Amino acid sequence: MPKNESANDLMEKIVSLCKRRGFVFPGSEIYGGLANSWDYGPLGVELKNNIKALWWERFVQRRDDMVGLDSALIMNPGVWAASGHLSAGFADPLVECKKCHARFRADQIDIKKPCGNCGAKNMFTEPRQFNLMFKTFIGPAEEQANIAYFRPETAQGIFVDFKNIMDTARRHLPFGVGQVGKAFRNEITPGNFIFRTREFEQMEIEYFIPVPARAADWEEYFEMWRKEMMAWIKEVGIDVRKVHETEVGEGDRAHYSKRTIDFEFEYPFGQEELYGLAYRTDFDLKNHFKEPPFRDAQTGEAFWPHVIEPSLGVDRTMLAVLLSTYTEDGERTFLKLPPRLAPYKAAVFPLLANKPQLVTAARAIYDELRATFMVAWDERGNIGKRYYAQDEIGTPYCITVDFDTLGDGEDKYLKGTVTVRDRDTGKQERIAIAKLADFIAGKVS
Amino acid sequence: MPKNESANDLMEKIVSLCKRRGFVFPGSEIYGGLANSWDYGPLGVELKNNIKALWWERFVQRRDDMVGLDSALIMNPGVWAASGHLSAGFADPLVECKKCHARFRADQIDIKKPCGNCGAKNMFTEPRQFNLMFKTFIGPAEEQANIAYFRPETAQGIFVDFKNIMDTARRHLPFGVGQVGKAFRNEITPGNFIFRTREFEQMEIEYFIPVPARAADWEEYFEMWRKEMMAWIKEVGIDVRKVHETEVGEGDRAHYSKRTIDFEFEYPFGQEELYGLAYRTDFDLKNHFKEPPFRDAQTGEAFWPHVIEPSLGVDRTMLAVLLSTYTEDGERTFLKLPPRLAPYKAAVFPLLANKPQLVTAARAIYDELRATFMVAWDERGNIGKRYYAQDEIGTPYCITVDFDTLGDGEDKYLKGTVTVRDRDTGKQERIAIAKLADFIAGKVS
Repeated sequence: MPKNESANDLMEKIVSLCKRRGFVFPGSEIYGGLANSWDYGPLGVELKNNIKALWWERFVQRRDDMVGLDSALIMNPGVWAASGHLSAGFADPLVECKKCHARFRADQIDIKKPCGNCGAKNMFTEPRQFNLMFKTFIGPAEEQANIAYFRPETAQGIFVDFKNIMDTARRHLPFGVGQVGKAFRNEITPGNFIFRTREFEQMEIEYFIPVPARAADWEEYFEMWRKEMMAWIKEVGIDVRKVHETEVGEGDRAHYSKRTIDFEFEYPFGQEELYGLAYRTDFDLKNHFKEPPFRDAQTGEAFWPHVIEPSLGVDRTMLAVLLSTYTEDGERTFLKLPPRLAPYKAAVFPLLANKPQLVTAARAIYDELRATFMVAWDERGNIGKRYYAQDEIGTPYCITVDFDTLGDGEDKYLKGTVTVRDRDTGKQERIAIAKLADFIAGKVS
Repeated sequence: MPKNESANDLMEKIVSLCKRRGFVFPGSEIYGGLANSWDYGPLGVELKNNIKALWWERFVQRRDDMVGLDSALIMNPGVWAASGHLSAGFADPLVECKKCHARFRADQIDIKKPCGNCGAKNMFTEPRQFNLMFKTFIGPAEEQANIAYFRPETAQGIFVDFKNIMDTARRHLPFGVGQVGKAFRNEITPGNFIFRTREFEQMEIEYFIPVPARAADWEEYFEMWRKEMMAWIKEVGIDVRKVHETEVGEGDRAHYSKRTIDFEFEYPFGQEELYGLAYRTDFDLKNHFKEPPFRDAQTGEAFWPHVIEPSLGVDRTMLAVLLSTYTEDGERTFLKLPPRLAPYKAAVFPLLANKPQLVTAARAIYDELRATFMVAWDERGNIGKRYYAQDEIGTPYCITVDFDTLGDGEDKYLKGTVTVRDRDTGKQERIAIAKLADFIAGKVS
């Protein structure tokens, strides 16, 4: 099979699995959908929440040099004027076919070729700049004074609140602020499932450092975050062999950035951005604060701290994790999710659904475990089908209560034990019921 | 002091504490703010996240009859046409003073009286209906076909995805879906801090039950959720003596609701809604599904399940928790937060900041504990000031390393122990360093 066909095949399999098992549904599907919007279903919301919780714990809670923030999605338009988001720099060049009215990004097509939709030649309009922010009006009057925008990135909330945070959080430089939340961009051409959507979720850090003259080296902090991002990529289960660090050249970088690395991932549809790491200098804080917003406690010197920005997308993380952990091994198909991220940490089965003693014993284990963990229950069909169903959603451990558990099997000494099957190896071991909770806790922490 | 003055005083104290200590900042403050929008600072985001995590764990993860969802904020406009949100029912009656152009909700003022802003008499315009949804446009053309709305409630996402959820989640009725997320209402008169804001966060459950003819009693499920909501109110630390269940009369209920209870709270500005519980019949599912979306596995009968809706606001929960736990006791001021919700579970102090041995020993404890818990570090000023600072943000335990800890005090047998001070009682006890992690874990779980 040629590579492209197999790659598209993988993408189709992931999209299909996501819908069939409740990870991701098309948004507003019963109304014909809404232009590549997606809802996270019962399993998807757990996986996504686990990704966000792991990020928050790792980068905000467990680090002495970080705090968190949750700023509003609608901000004062003055923010976007200062940040540059109202300028041409945050706009896509839009062309329209005069014949069929299909719209394209001028930088993504060859505008000298026929329209990709209707085939008309030389029928494109002149490119015009189309700002990517979603506009709305606050209050009842739709007039200029009441325009507001939904944020196109979480980062600006951190910059705007910088002084309030420094005044309350008692931290010295270097020091960072992390934020997780929705952002919105009115993309002309969203697509590729949850890769590019108009509504998406970010996990962003703004890491403030002393101005270069005072710091040992901004490159030192940049390198620290580069390593942290690679460590995160590994922990979250993304295939590091498919991740490529790309230096963004001077011509392609934002004018204020002195260095940018794109972390690109080999998606089935091509090598595209996964994460970004940028040294933004003091550009942002100078935009928002006329006076230096930071004063060194020792020297009394006032200045605008410089910023390193590790920027991660939640939805792209989830897509890369799904693509990386999807495994076909002979007859088995499974998601090799890190146990910490798996929606269910374990599934509990009675060997046979029509034996009340087995069901009662299994139910007791299920009830005990789910007081602490997310645990699935399944008594449908045969064990093989249940394994298949749990493999497909990445449940790391399947626990089966059989006649040995009850002391009714050949091996009497197996009474009080259950079979625990490992998702990745398919191997089974007997574990005492009393030790199950500790066993799972050890695997998921 | 008259009651109102003392009450306003409390509100001012909470707002001031929230800003001073990093719980809540005015949104876009350096740009003059944005009409009662608020950002959650380093401590506020932790408290808010803890509230949401507790709700999710209690109502979604630990219940066998619930699953979660995270649907998109922007939905197909057809959703809002079907749900009734585009109709006059989801609009405020707006009047404007012709003289000063101040705007009011006609149902909140006496429009026969002089304008509350400029004093003009009989100068109000006729009331006109103003829809509360934030409107925007998808794609570059601002035309009717591209209008989209940001959701005014999370509930409709659950109804629209009902079939996808039922097809993937393998559950029987009764069965519920929980969702946490932002919603937006273009209120004419937001106010009272985080009580009423245009951008807010909801925690909603739609609990689907068999149609009344088949159920033992819809009132049974309604009562179950009434009790669950009261149990939640207690667990989260809201003063139950200030919570009042109010039956909403037939004239005031939505026409589709057969019963609604408002859980009202005595805020300093008056007794107002905290949560709502409504029996919405099959109104919502019938709006969205022409055909019955559920088929009973046993009887094969197809029908539209009925719905009980416990609806909670995240921001109001946080406000009620802050108001309920704020305590002035003699010279002490503290937030009596449930330890599970407190931003920091403990604070670690060296008795004296200028004794390296004390600082080293305290730092080791701090580093060990913060691998598991959110823990604060403080070496400023004297112990009394540090207690004061931690009390004010609700840190339940303060751990002090002193000379006894090092074995350098009078009581040699206290070596390896620290002083742990309880926030609520102010009492201190000695605890072995080796037992600290278990001590805290026992208190916060």
